[in-house]
Amino acid sequence: MVVATTNVSSPFSPNGTKKSLSTFSPNSFVNVEKGDPVAFRSYWEKVSDKSSVEIKGEEFMSYFGDGNNLCWYMLPQMREAILRIHNVVGNVVTKDKFIVLGNGSTQLFNALLYALSPSDPSDQPINVVAAAPYYSEYQDVIDHMQSRLFQWGGDAALYDENKPYIEVVTSPNNPDGTLRTPVVNSEVEGKLIYDLAYYWPQYTPITHQINQDVTLFTLSKCTGHGGSRIGWAFVKDIEVAKKMMRFMHLSSIGVSKESQIRAAKIIEVICDGYENFKSVGSDHLFFNYTKKLMIERWEKFKGAIEKSKVFTLPKYPTSYCHFNKEFSDQYPAFAWLKCVEGIENGESYLEKLKIRTRGGERFGDDAKYTRLSMIGTDDEFAEMCTRLSNAKRE
Amino acid sequence: MVVATTNVSSPFSPNGTKKSLSTFSPNSFVNVEKGDPVAFRSYWEKVSDKSSVEIKGEEFMSYFGDGNNLCWYMLPQMREAILRIHNVVGNVVTKDKFIVLGNGSTQLFNALLYALSPSDPSDQPINVVAAAPYYSEYQDVIDHMQSRLFQWGGDAALYDENKPYIEVVTSPNNPDGTLRTPVVNSEVEGKLIYDLAYYWPQYTPITHQINQDVTLFTLSKCTGHGGSRIGWAFVKDIEVAKKMMRFMHLSSIGVSKESQIRAAKIIEVICDGYENFKSVGSDHLFFNYTKKLMIERWEKFKGAIEKSKVFTLPKYPTSYCHFNKEFSDQYPAFAWLKCVEGIENGESYLEKLKIRTRGGERFGDDAKYTRLSMIGTDDEFAEMCTRLSNAKRE
Repeated sequence: MVVATTNVSSPFSPNGTKKSLSTFSPNSFVNVEKGDPVAFRSYWEKVSDKSSVEIKGEEFMSYFGDGNNLCWYMLPQMREAILRIHNVVGNVVTKDKFIVLGNGSTQLFNALLYALSPSDPSDQPINVVAAAPYYSEYQDVIDHMQSRLFQWGGDAALYDENKPYIEVVTSPNNPDGTLRTPVVNSEVEGKLIYDLAYYWPQYTPITHQINQDVTLFTLSKCTGHGGSRIGWAFVKDIEVAKKMMRFMHLSSIGVSKESQIRAAKIIEVICDGYENFKSVGSDHLFFNYTKKLMIERWEKFKGAIEKSKVFTLPKYPTSYCHFNKEFSDQYPAFAWLKCVEGIENGESYLEKLKIRTRGGERFGDDAKYTRLSMIGTDDEFAEMCTRLSNAKRE
Repeated sequence: MVVATTNVSSPFSPNGTKKSLSTFSPNSFVNVEKGDPVAFRSYWEKVSDKSSVEIKGEEFMSYFGDGNNLCWYMLPQMREAILRIHNVVGNVVTKDKFIVLGNGSTQLFNALLYALSPSDPSDQPINVVAAAPYYSEYQDVIDHMQSRLFQWGGDAALYDENKPYIEVVTSPNNPDGTLRTPVVNSEVEGKLIYDLAYYWPQYTPITHQINQDVTLFTLSKCTGHGGSRIGWAFVKDIEVAKKMMRFMHLSSIGVSKESQIRAAKIIEVICDGYENFKSVGSDHLFFNYTKKLMIERWEKFKGAIEKSKVFTLPKYPTSYCHFNKEFSDQYPAFAWLKCVEGIENGESYLEKLKIRTRGGERFGDDAKYTRLSMIGTDDEFAEMCTRLSNAKRE
């Protein structure tokens, strides 16, 4: 077996994970380019026993999870957990929706491209658009299979074709954290995919229960378990859900049962906290703990940015959070930095400071911008702040 | 949440799994149309404690498994387990190959279509062929995304275009259990995908170590853990492996860590048996146990078929098995029945006997043929044999 030392072109450079175990040397990079959501690990360490699962050799061998459900590979306990956490948080309307489970929301995004495209092969490919700055992966996912069904249509704000389209609405947005609504202004009716990966109380006030035809969620950004590859879609139209299921069948014959069992347990621990132990200190409650963590990180980060005088940050409005029952700022999973006058390339500038980030052009925006993860390890985050605060205008 | 009662068009009808818990009523179908590999469950019940895994809430949260490996989401223990079981069985050459892990071998088949197609968009789609009867899913997987990169080219034995092609060689073959080699006779060099899902000692003599550019395996048919969605490819060319990795990234950002941990443990239990306990009764050893199970089922099945006088079965050669160190017959995971003269449609005939099978036309062959799973539950299998032996020529 060959062990490759070559680096594969992946937005998830693996170095960061390892470095968290050691002190950074001045010559090593702090990698905040990826969005590996390991920041919440300290919470799960505190509830380690409660949140552990045991799986016996003879359990969950079948392809099937629940033959009575449209999503036949989904275990009943997975479905119950998904419904329960949305009931606790109140971020989406689950009534009269089908749930389709995926290997992360990425696979479900692929499934939706297939399911929302016109089935008639004589039709032109449908345009898929998203308002810039948009998640850097959408275009690659859309382009790579060179499908005759759909094609990347670019910035939704500039879309002016009188043809059917799919608009991806990411809210809060990756990379810039803004809360979003559709922007395409067309006479033709478009289809909407709401990517709600970050619509959880640690990042943003939960302003209302979203009720849309198609919404996407992922365990990665909710609980921090990116390694489990669990995502789910709420889908109103059974025909769309059926087409997604056909995609899921042909793509991977479903989703890992082990991940489902574990995700169900993780979600159960969160919900038990809110439903049974409202009187215990709020630090024991997952979203309270992780929101506090995000607030602390953002305060420290803003201090470093102000000290450096090299970058500015977006301003976010304060909104009422129906989950926390208070007015709240936003604490996005990524910082979206803009260089001050005279610095043209944020990513290159930070490379010199040995901070690896993802530049604005990858998100359909200007190179003055760059994106930094706020949800890496404590060590990474601390080192990033130290290096940022030492930045000086050249 | 809507619970759908509508049946989604899936080759895995879910009814069988449930019915295994109860006695079959005369009006209920025995579903042997799918290949849900739950037959080996009794082995895993016997080693339940040894083969169980515990996963704590804070473990395996990262997207990454091993940043030093090309397949960056693969855990080191998963890679070690894969190498170890092939070392024990001796069915494939692992030296100088890259391992790419997938959500089942289905996802890796998708990845290979992408990786083996010409990258130049001005090229015509490459033809993908397989000798009939071929696995019924290949064509659907190839067709559904309507890619400009590749297209279904039909029966490999009839392929006569002087253009590049990909030939899928499934050995032992699904549906008919035959050992196969490439069949395309072309002046143009083709690329080969060896699908070796069933090249394990419980189904077939291990005649030699296969050494090919691309080979595919799946945990489902090896150990019976279809629910885990674990498959792996051995790939000789690093450029092909890198393209597969790009597909895996854009398709699902890797593979469940929980499934990897569990698969590694399951494989460890099998290998520990062979490496440390050669003196214990062979029933304690996985492949011995499961081969015995397959022999018993095939003997019972052949008895039922002979009694009915309605079907014939393929004849398989006896070969020397380098793993078992003995000459051995084949005991395929599926029975491929052919109707005797006067019966034109095997699937319809068996529907009347309340046995649900998958007809020959789905595999690019004649309707006289139909495929039955030999690896379902004990109850399903017993009831199938009872109903078959009661079959009479009309």
